[in-house]
Amino acid sequence: MRKVENVILKGNICYSQDSKNLIIEENSFLVCEDGKSAGVFREIPEKYCDFEVRDYGECLIVPGCVDLHLHAPQFAFRGFAMDLELLEWLDTVTFPEEARFSDLEYANRAYQMFADTMKKSATTRAVIFGTIHTEATICLMDWMEATGLKTYVGKVNMDQNCPEMLRESSGKSVEATKRWISRVEGAYQNVKPILTPRFIPSCSGQLLEGIADLQRQYHLPVQSHLSENPNEISWVHELYPDTQCYGEAYEKYGLFGENGNTVMAHCIYSDEKELELMKKRGVWIAHCPQSNMNLSSGIAPVRTYLERGMKIGLGTDMAAGFSESIFRAMGEAVQMSKMRWRLVDQSQPPLKLEEAFFLGTKGGGSFFGKVGSFEKGYEMDAIVLNDAKLPYPHALSVRQRLERMIYLSDDRHIQAKYVCGSQIF
Amino acid sequence: MRKVENVILKGNICYSQDSKNLIIEENSFLVCEDGKSAGVFREIPEKYCDFEVRDYGECLIVPGCVDLHLHAPQFAFRGFAMDLELLEWLDTVTFPEEARFSDLEYANRAYQMFADTMKKSATTRAVIFGTIHTEATICLMDWMEATGLKTYVGKVNMDQNCPEMLRESSGKSVEATKRWISRVEGAYQNVKPILTPRFIPSCSGQLLEGIADLQRQYHLPVQSHLSENPNEISWVHELYPDTQCYGEAYEKYGLFGENGNTVMAHCIYSDEKELELMKKRGVWIAHCPQSNMNLSSGIAPVRTYLERGMKIGLGTDMAAGFSESIFRAMGEAVQMSKMRWRLVDQSQPPLKLEEAFFLGTKGGGSFFGKVGSFEKGYEMDAIVLNDAKLPYPHALSVRQRLERMIYLSDDRHIQAKYVCGSQIF
Repeated sequence: MRKVENVILKGNICYSQDSKNLIIEENSFLVCEDGKSAGVFREIPEKYCDFEVRDYGECLIVPGCVDLHLHAPQFAFRGFAMDLELLEWLDTVTFPEEARFSDLEYANRAYQMFADTMKKSATTRAVIFGTIHTEATICLMDWMEATGLKTYVGKVNMDQNCPEMLRESSGKSVEATKRWISRVEGAYQNVKPILTPRFIPSCSGQLLEGIADLQRQYHLPVQSHLSENPNEISWVHELYPDTQCYGEAYEKYGLFGENGNTVMAHCIYSDEKELELMKKRGVWIAHCPQSNMNLSSGIAPVRTYLERGMKIGLGTDMAAGFSESIFRAMGEAVQMSKMRWRLVDQSQPPLKLEEAFFLGTKGGGSFFGKVGSFEKGYEMDAIVLNDAKLPYPHALSVRQRLERMIYLSDDRHIQAKYVCGSQIF
Repeated sequence: MRKVENVILKGNICYSQDSKNLIIEENSFLVCEDGKSAGVFREIPEKYCDFEVRDYGECLIVPGCVDLHLHAPQFAFRGFAMDLELLEWLDTVTFPEEARFSDLEYANRAYQMFADTMKKSATTRAVIFGTIHTEATICLMDWMEATGLKTYVGKVNMDQNCPEMLRESSGKSVEATKRWISRVEGAYQNVKPILTPRFIPSCSGQLLEGIADLQRQYHLPVQSHLSENPNEISWVHELYPDTQCYGEAYEKYGLFGENGNTVMAHCIYSDEKELELMKKRGVWIAHCPQSNMNLSSGIAPVRTYLERGMKIGLGTDMAAGFSESIFRAMGEAVQMSKMRWRLVDQSQPPLKLEEAFFLGTKGGGSFFGKVGSFEKGYEMDAIVLNDAKLPYPHALSVRQRLERMIYLSDDRHIQAKYVCGSQIF
């Protein structure tokens, strides 16, 4: 990783102001000062004239992508076992695979592959599940630190409704988490711990109470799953018959945004009650369209969430999603919104390019602070996209080229990547 | 293109017997004699012991993919204008773009790019729309001939409900088509003409009658569109109030499989009447899941079609589909069948890997004859897939590796490609 904290990037610059407004500045200068954007300019302002200028010619320069939800240990089986539904998939593929991470040598090998793929991707920020294993999770954090990406990584907690080999006792789970936090907090430049109760069915009340205690003590953010699948929701209702929605089961223990940033993956079936609670508590939604297809989960009402001003971004949910690409997730968010319009609710028009791009950059970026845009003061995460090898027989506008990159790009098209002004490659 | 008509390929060989049975022969020998499969063997039979053996080691060897429906002129705008529905998309993007192909210099540039992408893809057979322009269509056929892929290419016919610049008079359209056929029939080794009335709304009865006359005269196959979008279907019903289904409008003129192989793209909303007619006439269905998402069209009941023994394969429908990959179409056929199960009809379980793989190889291949499998006597179209650069931390079965390739592969993973035993690269 090359340190370039004061630098100017020249190219065709695209970024979101909000979910409706995509700013496109052709042949312009993105000024990065102390790792933050000082703004985008047609000419270099006098005060920055001694900054190094990197001219990326006709390339597109866009904010780094933000992945609000993925499982690092599942990377090893992305792209197969794609014919199961959530609860069956957990039992027959996911849990046995995750159990392998008790073997640190295996974890080291698998997490190196994961980190290498993330480094080459368009993602600059990610919120990541590990497994229950402390040593393997620290190994994951070490590998992610080396990528230069800014990430939250969580040691998973679960003490019920999972195979013996992945089951912790509630007391030991809390203790292990506490020791893990004390080892990793402040130990990295790029990686921070996040509390990670897997989901309501796999955590006892005692465990959730213990995690909430840790949150109050350490002020850490929380990640989990919410309202992904009808069977899962029924199960939560059986476990917590006194709650009016799934989210209330987290809230009951103080793990629903009361004491720190919280991100919940999926939220496909969140009802009015749950939406109100999420809005009130400022809970982020990680919309994972590819996963929601692959596990036959359904289609989240993303337009509704945007209209109601919910906090929302995108997740790949590897390996229920097989692709690490948030560009692909943007395209799939549009595609799934079209299927939802056609098959579920024609009062909600499909998402536009502007909205999908916002979700994958500034929408999810807000979980990390001022991240995901090039407005002045935003942390300068950037991707330089070179589409010269994607031929077309006539001239395209920058907006058309951006849309093509969302649908057609892969790691070959990423010419450079910056996080907080430092060049990753 | 290298001529290798008698050759043996060694590797992990996978092919469909039918939609339920995927045959996997590890470390085996696929014998190709005179461009056809002589079978797959664990040891090389005595009679083939003087054939050249190409050892592809751990690679997967699968039948070439078959794309039953795509539009070559639309390649130039794949990946943008992805937020429109069918009829709006035709008027604002597709027709203006297709009009450019009156310029032969432009057509030459655009079709070279298209052919180059097709050559590098996993596709070995394709059924392709051109435009109304005879010279441009011949240019497309020239480029496709050079790829070595086996294709059907059609000069489009339309004489109504389209912009002036793309409208032919019915008489001139038939005349031009007749002259085109006489110039191209038998002129190529790899490319054959196919009759291509665009779709019912853009063809007058007089034009359809003229095309049917040409079919009887030249015994050519036919390609068109069917039951893609509710608005389109209503429109056809207004145009032909006396027909009981959209397909009957083609049948009325003898263009629904009576006089030659016929493939109809989409068939999302085909009702009982239409299905019976297609079954009776042996009409192929080109299922195009990505297009059906992108144009908000809906989800075809593919399981029903398989259960009823319909002839069915996959299409990319470029550029309503942005990707040229039939592997991707296989994955999307599975994904869309899951969304259909979840949102439309829980009596029809999602497609399995075996079924999707069949659709993209042997299912569509049947349009070309004995194509899309490695059973004895099948034309030897093969793709050699090298997944060594897709890392995984533990051993995988060949079936798992095949599934990963369907979801994760791109042109980088195609190490070699054969059509009728001749090596394309």
